[in-house]
Amino acid sequence: MISKESVINDLNAVRSKSPLVHNITNYVVMNTTANALLAVGASPVMAHSVDEVEDMVKIASSLVINIGTLSKNWVDAMIKAGKVAKERGIPVVFDPVGAGATNYRTETSLRIIQECRPGIIRGNASEIMALTNEKGNTKGVDSTTSSDSALDVAKILAKDTGAVIVISGPVDYIIDEQSVIKVMNGSSMMSKVTGLGCTATALIGAFIAVNKNLILASAHAMSVMGIAGELAANKAEGPGTMQMHFLDELYKLSDKEIIQHFNME
Amino acid sequence: MISKESVINDLNAVRSKSPLVHNITNYVVMNTTANALLAVGASPVMAHSVDEVEDMVKIASSLVINIGTLSKNWVDAMIKAGKVAKERGIPVVFDPVGAGATNYRTETSLRIIQECRPGIIRGNASEIMALTNEKGNTKGVDSTTSSDSALDVAKILAKDTGAVIVISGPVDYIIDEQSVIKVMNGSSMMSKVTGLGCTATALIGAFIAVNKNLILASAHAMSVMGIAGELAANKAEGPGTMQMHFLDELYKLSDKEIIQHFNME
Amino acid sequence: MISKESVINDLNAVRSKSPLVHNITNYVVMNTTANALLAVGASPVMAHSVDEVEDMVKIASSLVINIGTLSKNWVDAMIKAGKVAKERGIPVVFDPVGAGATNYRTETSLRIIQECRPGIIRGNASEIMALTNEKGNTKGVDSTTSSDSALDVAKILAKDTGAVIVISGPVDYIIDEQSVIKVMNGSSMMSKVTGLGCTATALIGAFIAVNKNLILASAHAMSVMGIAGELAANKAEGPGTMQMHFLDELYKLSDKEIIQHFNME
Repeated sequence: MISKESVINDLNAVRSKSPLVHNITNYVVMNTTANALLAVGASPVMAHSVDEVEDMVKIASSLVINIGTLSKNWVDAMIKAGKVAKERGIPVVFDPVGAGATNYRTETSLRIIQECRPGIIRGNASEIMALTNEKGNTKGVDSTTSSDSALDVAKILAKDTGAVIVISGPVDYIIDEQSVIKVMNGSSMMSKVTGLGCTATALIGAFIAVNKNLILASAHAMSVMGIAGELAANKAEGPGTMQMHFLDELYKLSDKEIIQHFNME
Repeated sequence: MISKESVINDLNAVRSKSPLVHNITNYVVMNTTANALLAVGASPVMAHSVDEVEDMVKIASSLVINIGTLSKNWVDAMIKAGKVAKERGIPVVFDPVGAGATNYRTETSLRIIQECRPGIIRGNASEIMALTNEKGNTKGVDSTTSSDSALDVAKILAKDTGAVIVISGPVDYIIDEQSVIKVMNGSSMMSKVTGLGCTATALIGAFIAVNKNLILASAHAMSVMGIAGELAANKAEGPGTMQMHFLDELYKLSDKEIIQHFNME
Repeated sequence: MISKESVINDLNAVRSKSPLVHNITNYVVMNTTANALLAVGASPVMAHSVDEVEDMVKIASSLVINIGTLSKNWVDAMIKAGKVAKERGIPVVFDPVGAGATNYRTETSLRIIQECRPGIIRGNASEIMALTNEKGNTKGVDSTTSSDSALDVAKILAKDTGAVIVISGPVDYIIDEQSVIKVMNGSSMMSKVTGLGCTATALIGAFIAVNKNLILASAHAMSVMGIAGELAANKAEGPGTMQMHFLDELYKLSDKEIIQHFNME
């Protein structure tokens, strides 16, 4: 069951175990997601060469695949790493950035899902819709579809793929075949900082490294993300200060703050 | 005509239309230019694979090409995207980072200009000089030539290429065959933050997406850039705080601040 | 001899000469190390294409090679640039990020050391151990070995390679065949910001560009790094503010602050 205590327990587990999270991600967010992973207590590594991804993922506690700035060699490495992770039972979270914007992104996303069977797929509503042939509307990498309207589609995707589906937006939905968890934290200022969606994916990577229950781990990660975002937005005067405070709040986040701001159902 | 009002109008247009700006740019600045585009109100997308740049540029309102960390595959994608943009009348701004520092940069820049016919070319004085066989002196990617001395050269380049030429420096010059606009905003602290030249180019990308008059759109972008930089520098204690405040100021920039700080002729 | 005055002299030399530092480095830290180099007074350039690295390194005052996100083409460029630097007497600092984590990283590191003969090798204790077949324990890119235990190994590596070895950690060791310098500055908060190890390497690149005595130049760089880190940590509330203040402090660092915080032996 989701509870304040379960969020706190998982965050403490990330901080005490400092799991190695292997990221094959995009150029735009590498620095910020590495910093977010460090701030939350995990140990990030970025490695994308086909000459080493197998070796790296074998020593990792989870794998994050993000196609934000995909190209052929990177996709090859993602699939290579994802298959090894699947074989070894290392949990994988996949972020289909911009799915629906170009055929290349949609097709690559579907291929990664089919070949690597990620345990979690996190995207905005448009991206999730694009993975099911529903007509979402991706404008570049930003969503133009509401999370609510993507909910039914996400349930089908969860059933078809066996993955937990996470739709981020003003309300975050964490979905599997049986259940839907809603996280009602965060701030509109978060959409003014590039890569906070990718950061959510990376944080999920940290939480699935310490909790095998993928839907709970994902919900906990989104809760921590949203609460830190809320606290940061209270101090921010714009996206520059937002970005800075977000890392500070993620690093400092206390049990008391989680208890006070926890807002899930 | 350039006026305070025309700057305000274009900024409001960027904020209300949130145009999709497709960037094929360098690794160093991807995060910061994405953040600047979000802060000013645009919707950035970074995509560089030859397998998708044509599809991406077709849905974009403008294209930014920046060779800061160029290599063969990236140049191929730049030219592919630039040609599609030209065919479709999607405006293109080109940043010849480091032209003159190596032959590869100079030759690639000339090739992109010839094959893609960008509507705007923005560089520092040394880079602009390098595009015309004049002996500028590029020290890596930093200019060692004054903007003033590059002015005559830029007029020739504008005539030869049909492009608007933007030379950034303590005074920014926006040049076409007929006219020269000077923007006298900004702060010396801006040169202590990496990639603010590239950010200027990206902001031009946002403004040409909402205003077809390329010389005015470019001047408006440089004005907004310079004023935000000035306001940020007033609060900054060094390049770290400068970078943060710059994004905040860009995001918050008010009509009143534009009216107060506007300094063009 | 190491002294407060020698640190100040080298920092002033970097600020007045603004040497061009050519970086072939990783995607995660490109922005932050470029900013750190600008903040300390150097002129950074990032260029990695085999089509231009020879031309770029020829006009540079030093070369920084960092394998943080290595892949085949990048390694080819690193070796090409490193060989030209060696021929021309341009000093090279090498950062074997993650050596020991995968065979690819260990083997590539050994190959770069053998073919380019870098004047300085900087890593954490685990990475340095991995270069000598000693059993260090690299967890991704983070060290799990203490600097003290790597000291003897580093002396052997210094002898075998002729390079100055820099081991960063709570205490930084700068080692050549004859001597060991200890820098006892810095803050534990520095390990919570991604890429500050890579930043240390980049700053060494700035200092070897102005001082041919590689062990002294490296020690001076680590001193400046550590003092700026200490001052920043005093103002920081978490890794977000840490990163920002670090750049400010590096930029503002005064003779008086160096005199007050200097802690070497």
